[in-house]
This record gives sequence, structure tokens and C-alpha cells, in this order.
Amino acid sequence: MSVNLPKSDSHSVILGTETPLQLDCGVTLGSISMAYCTYGTLNADRSNAILVCHALTGDQFAASRQPVTGKDGWWSMMIGPGKILDTNRYYIVCSNVLGGCMGTTGPSEIDPKTGKPYGLTFPIITIADMVRAQAMLQDYLGIDSWFSVIGGSMGGMQALQWAAAYPERVYSAIPIACAARHSAQNIAFHEVGRQAVMADPNWQGGEYYGSGRKPTSGLAVARMAAHITYLSEAALHRKFGRNLQDRDSLAYGFDAEFQVESYLRYQGINFVDRFDANSYLYITRAMDYFDLFSDHGGNLATAFEGTKTRFCVVSFSSDWLFPTSENKQIVHALITAAANVSFVEVETDKGHDAFLLDTPDMLRTIDGFLQSTARSRGLAE
Amino acid sequence: MSVNLPKSDSHSVILGTETPLQLDCGVTLGSISMAYCTYGTLNADRSNAILVCHALTGDQFAASRQPVTGKDGWWSMMIGPGKILDTNRYYIVCSNVLGGCMGTTGPSEIDPKTGKPYGLTFPIITIADMVRAQAMLQDYLGIDSWFSVIGGSMGGMQALQWAAAYPERVYSAIPIACAARHSAQNIAFHEVGRQAVMADPNWQGGEYYGSGRKPTSGLAVARMAAHITYLSEAALHRKFGRNLQDRDSLAYGFDAEFQVESYLRYQGINFVDRFDANSYLYITRAMDYFDLFSDHGGNLATAFEGTKTRFCVVSFSSDWLFPTSENKQIVHALITAAANVSFVEVETDKGHDAFLLDTPDMLRTIDGFLQSTARSRGLAE
Repeated sequence: MSVNLPKSDSHSVILGTETPLQLDCGVTLGSISMAYCTYGTLNADRSNAILVCHALTGDQFAASRQPVTGKDGWWSMMIGPGKILDTNRYYIVCSNVLGGCMGTTGPSEIDPKTGKPYGLTFPIITIADMVRAQAMLQDYLGIDSWFSVIGGSMGGMQALQWAAAYPERVYSAIPIACAARHSAQNIAFHEVGRQAVMADPNWQGGEYYGSGRKPTSGLAVARMAAHITYLSEAALHRKFGRNLQDRDSLAYGFDAEFQVESYLRYQGINFVDRFDANSYLYITRAMDYFDLFSDHGGNLATAFEGTKTRFCVVSFSSDWLFPTSENKQIVHALITAAANVSFVEVETDKGHDAFLLDTPDMLRTIDGFLQSTARSRGLAE
Repeated sequence: MSVNLPKSDSHSVILGTETPLQLDCGVTLGSISMAYCTYGTLNADRSNAILVCHALTGDQFAASRQPVTGKDGWWSMMIGPGKILDTNRYYIVCSNVLGGCMGTTGPSEIDPKTGKPYGLTFPIITIADMVRAQAMLQDYLGIDSWFSVIGGSMGGMQALQWAAAYPERVYSAIPIACAARHSAQNIAFHEVGRQAVMADPNWQGGEYYGSGRKPTSGLAVARMAAHITYLSEAALHRKFGRNLQDRDSLAYGFDAEFQVESYLRYQGINFVDRFDANSYLYITRAMDYFDLFSDHGGNLATAFEGTKTRFCVVSFSSDWLFPTSENKQIVHALITAAANVSFVEVETDKGHDAFLLDTPDMLRTIDGFLQSTARSRGLAE
């Protein structure tokens, strides 16, 4: 743990005081806090900045020690000196998404109008809103155009949204293991998670802040259900199979008898310490609403018409949450839009979570793409 | 509704008063109630009886009006005069499984030792225990050998267990959409469901009977999560896609905005009226424990060595809960054991639930198998 973490700076800034953030739902947020981490140094012509977008339960501590868990950041594998996102070469920015719970404005933050936490009075947000907030951060940082916007899962959705909404402000985009619209099955899994949270009496209609009770049981169940979808059946079989936990023979009971049960319970229990249940509701909802097809009259290619952004789309063969077929819809639309696009389906049995893991083909793919894109932008080696 | 339901008889019998039921977990149940329905007439030489085994949340009312919901039985499509399981020709028996909640002994029934419902003092049961109890019913009915044992999902597990444990008492077996052992992923989904039930404060450690409070919220969440696994992504996309429920534009809220959410909530809410939460815990656990491989030293073929039972194995191409690959493991073992086996993978996008639906290729397959098997047993047309 914590070997080879890059030097990082943790920041928080108030944005939108002059031009407030106008949300898709119609509500205006007067001003927002945005928490972000940076790694590396912005070059003189501000052309080497990469925006890393985190997934549903991620945060800005992409390559820093996470303050609650004390663990290395979720993409420490990717970000650092000499790594794929080379902090000797690039300036890496990772911000907590709008609606999050690690410092950026979200349901657990204080509503300046009432002096109390927003709770369910927080407006519904979308992926486009998250990206609008990030664009305010880009302005604040004085960066005209990201060298790249990269992310997996919901991070990939943000990369796509960036390219669709602000093509001139994104030199390249690397959406990994995502889709241009959330599928019915994925909405269904999210709804199960939300219902699990809301069924917990400690949720209290979302007004649990300061009550001394939090919907930890419901949130743990939500996390457990979601976690299954992040892995593949093959990975679960390989890692756990029907192996028993700490015993040689069946105990015939409801304790975590199989290793896979013990693992899932661990995932659930550990999650609730670091994540806010209402944020989980809002961010899953934002993913549900994501539909770049309908945003562009049903024709995804329209979203990218005339784009100069270079794209690298990566999918995983065993990802059943965002299967290759959905990633290919993005690729087909980009090709139709005459965009510059690379696409690789990485063969792996690790499932959706492969983007967080040491998956050599993914690393090689992204490395090659960034190297050639850096040359085309004239970034020094 | 209720068109063309066969004439049915509903029965309840006390079994095991002389030779009590010895469970896998080591506990002995002094005597058990068994609730079952029959359709058609047993012939003179008692050779036309078919045992229909129900799935996790099924019951004995396979082709009768379900007393709680008032709906037609779950296999009314299959069972009746002139149907595949022809009640003019066969004597159909369907019993509520051990551990169930529709009259057969289970956690909601009164423990004769205490005069109170068993709750979590009910012993852990296995698929083999369910089949042992059914064998007691077979004895009681004076049937030497079932003409066939048929079922889907957990019903298919019972059919396999019957053939493995009592080969001379099963003339033919039709396991549909099942596996010879429960996979890590399926154990994981079951564990999520159980945790959802147990997280509900109204569960009260399983002692909710008579308290006026039942863990309906937790059980509904469990049902919702499970229900997703019964369908395929293609079926969800075809049925619901991203269609909105009762509105033309996004409402930006946490109500059931998408049709798929509304459908899932309906599945959850309706389930809790007809099913006992503790039964859900026990029966999912029984499925988790099912492992015909390890029961036979890791070699599934050993389970069927020397069998004279005729088999018809059916899987569905879009079933990701019990994928064709797992059904094929059964077929390969049967071939290795030199058994008489037919196998059909039915092409359908309906997912696991296809066995409950009007799936023409499944109906044709089972019909053809039963016709030829009836001829070989000398049953009159």
C-alpha cells in the first residue's frame, strides 16, 4: 500500500458565484463547492491537463490516500511518475462529481438557503450537470482544452458528455466500459439499490444527517447487489467458486458460509463508512437519466457531428453491465460522424471492474493512444 | 384468467410419523405436513404419475387458482386436458416443498415441541431433503415409480436429485433451466436477497409471526433483485427499454419514472403478500447448498451411474442465471454415465423465466419426449 503514490494537491473551490450552474431539471444552484485533486504540473501553454472522471462510488482521490479508508486512490495504478497517466508529463485533475459526498456540493452538504443539509431537497442532477460543473472548474483553472478526458463506467459517460457538449474544449476522450445510454437492466439494478436504501428506516426520508442514525444496512445491501454486477460470473467462479469460508465442511446455517458471501458482506460493510446514502441515490439516478441518443433526436452520431476530438473507446469482453455491444454503439456513431476513433475490446474475465484493475491490454491500449495523441498535440516527451 | 384450468384436488397429509425425516444437517423432523395438489386420475397400475417440482417461489397450485393471489397456477399453460402434461392421460402431483409456506412444514409452521412457529429454529434444509419428503409422499400415494419428474430452476434441481437418489423410482426426468450445483454468482444474488430481508427491522431475527409486523420492505427488495436475474437484458430492453411510466417527459425525481422501475416495484410489492420471508431464506439456502458434484466425489457422472432413467434436459439461450453451459455439464455427465438423454437449448430472448412462459420450442421438446417415453412405458394414448 501507498508505494509510489504521486505527489498530490487537494483543493476546494467555490464556483458559479457569478454565473450560476443551470441544471437540466430546471433548478439553478447559486454557487457550488468543488473538491478536486491535482497531480503533476500544468505546463506553460496549459496543454497537458488531463481530466480524470470517477465512477459512481469513486472520488477525487484518484491517486492519493483516501482520507476515510486510508487506502491508495482508486486509480493509483494508472496515475504517477512514469505510469500511463505520467505525472512527470501531464497535469492530472480529478474532481469529486456534483452530487458527491467528498466535498463537492451534494445532498449531504449544507444548503446555504436553510443552513441545513440538502437531503432530498437537493435537485436531481444529470451527467450533463456534472460535466457543466467540471467545465466551470476548467474555466477556473484557465485551461482552454483538456489534453484528454478519461474515465471508466460513469467516468466514461462523463468523457462522452464532455466530447458531445464541449468538443472544442476536449482534445481527446477515452471512454472506458460505458454506454451512451443507460440500459433497462442497469436502471433496474439501480432501482433495487435505491429501494434498499429507502427501505431502511434509518434513511428517514433522507433526513438522517445529525440524527445519529444512518441507513447503513440498506446502503450495504445496495452495494452488495451492485458489486455482483461489477464482476463476471467467470471471475466469481475463479476467485471463490463454492469454496467455504474458514471451515472444511458445511455448517448448515445463515452465516457467511461460502467465501463469496463473506466477500460480498465485506464489500457492503466497508462501503457505508465512506459513502453517503443520499449521494448514492442521486448519482445512480444521474446515470439512469444518461441518454445521449435521445438528447440528439435518437441519432447518436449527431452528438459528435464535426468533432475534432480524438477518441479511444475501450470495452471488456466479460463486462455484462456495459457490454461490448453498447460500447460499439458509441464507436459506430463516431465513425458515422467521421471522428478519429480507436476501439479495443480487451479480452479479460474480470468483468466491468477490469478498468480499476491491472489489465495489461487496457494499459497498453491507453498508453499507445496517449503517446500518439501527445505527439499530435506537440507535447514534449 | 382461469380459462381451461383442469379439475384439481388439494390435499394435506402428515408424513413421517413412523419413520421420521432425517435431514442432511443432522436434525430429524418427527413428522411433517405436506400440502399437494393433484390433477387427473391415477391409472390402475399406478404408472402414469408425474411429479411436478416447483421453483423457489412457486407452490403446489401449479394449475389451480392460487388461493392468495386468485391467479391461475404458475404452470397452467402446461397442465390440463389436452395440454403437454395431459390430465386426461397423466396423474399430476405437485407438492409444496419442505421449507415452503403454503402448507408443507416450514419456518412459518408451528413447531409441535414448542407450540410456536419455528422461525429460525427451523433446521436448514437441502434440495435432497425436499426430495426425501417427496419420496415419503410417493410411498404414501402407493406409487412405485414416477412416470416423470419435471421442473424448472429449483424444480429442475429436484428432478436431478430424484434421479440421483432414487433412480429406480423415476422412469424419466425433465430438468429445465437448472444446474447440478449452484454457482458463486447465484449464491451471491441469494445472499443479497437474504441480507435485504435480515436488514429489515421488522424481520426481528425471524420471530415476526404474530407481531403484526413483517419484513415486507426487505423481502420486496430481495424479490426485485432476484427478478432481474430471471429476465434477460434483451427481454428487459424489448419490454421496457427506457420508456417512461405514465408521462411524456422526464420528471427528475425518485418516483418510478421508467417503466422498468414501475414493473420491478410491482413484482416486489405483490410477492410479499403471498410468500413468507423466512421461507425465502431457507429455500434460497437450500439452493446454495445444492452440489451434486461434491455429493459424488467431484464426478457428476457417478451420480447417474447405471441409471435406467430417461432424461430430457432443456436450457434457454438467454438464461444467465442457469446458462446453457451449466445445463450441458449435466448432459455431459449423463452421457458419460451412458444414460438415455435428450438435450435441447431453446433459442429465446426471454431469459430464465422462459420455462414459465409460452415458449413453443420448449413445449414441443417436452411433448415429444413425453410421447415417446409414454410409448416405451406402454401408457395408452
